[in-house]
Amino acid sequence: MSNPVTADRRHFEDLAIDEVITLGRVTVTKRMIIDFATEFDPLPFHLDEAAARKSLLGGLAASGWQTAGLSLKLLVEAFLSKVASGGGLGFSDLKWRRPVMKGDSITGTVTISALRRSRSHPERGIVTLDFDIRNQKELPVMTMRLANLVELRDPTAPFADGDKS
Amino acid sequence: MSNPVTADRRHFEDLAIDEVITLGRVTVTKRMIIDFATEFDPLPFHLDEAAARKSLLGGLAASGWQTAGLSLKLLVEAFLSKVASGGGLGFSDLKWRRPVMKGDSITGTVTISALRRSRSHPERGIVTLDFDIRNQKELPVMTMRLANLVELRDPTAPFADGDKS
Repeated sequence: MSNPVTADRRHFEDLAIDEVITLGRVTVTKRMIIDFATEFDPLPFHLDEAAARKSLLGGLAASGWQTAGLSLKLLVEAFLSKVASGGGLGFSDLKWRRPVMKGDSITGTVTISALRRSRSHPERGIVTLDFDIRNQKELPVMTMRLANLVELRDPTAPFADGDKS
Repeated sequence: MSNPVTADRRHFEDLAIDEVITLGRVTVTKRMIIDFATEFDPLPFHLDEAAARKSLLGGLAASGWQTAGLSLKLLVEAFLSKVASGGGLGFSDLKWRRPVMKGDSITGTVTISALRRSRSHPERGIVTLDFDIRNQKELPVMTMRLANLVELRDPTAPFADGDKS
């Protein structure tokens, strides 16, 4: 059953291991940091510059979850909005490698590291996406591995050997 | 060096393995789902009810990242705002176990599963927090394991055997 919402998008068959997706860039402002932290992560070093200077982070820093959310947005814009995505399954090994401070900008790449057909739902595939998020100095700020469902164009296609890997 | 911002809060020495933190509850509205998705996860099944009904999720569902953000907010309110938190290090094994649909409410528990003194920064400890997020039917919607820094009240305290585990 083809999904009419996503019929014009890339499907599981169109994806290849080692494809590198280049993300756009977003600059993180003081306003963005405080607004996000107020809603989701209301700790002093994300809300108040004086408190932040006394913290381990040494200045006003974005919630690490805001870095994750902004990275997701960049992936949607560069990739997920163009594929027949069925939603995320989860992720592993998210690491915040250094803080994102007021005025920093983030960008990076996402690499397709695995493609696996679902045995239980043969109309779906699972794509593994490795994030490498960097700041404006090209220094790593976050890495993580996301597992996301992608629909097959032809769900009746036979399983290939590679589907077992 | 005691941090004046956090002097009245719980420190690493005050935490115990197996402590269970009971979270509050938040109900996820259609407006919240669409607002969050517009900013961070603009895919059809998080933005549009007709598209969502045709998707694998079967109806308007919150971005899994919104579930994570709301769970974080519940943890800040119930725990992190009361400890001398130095920020998150990362997390592992986040799994979205079932979607959070319009009108669902989420709550759950967070258990301290490990406490480790930092060898490189003896004024800091690392607390491991296991999330078990459930919906209003008590069904699991998300699990994850977060590593978070917590300051020691007495950074000159000798290392205990348990610090190596």
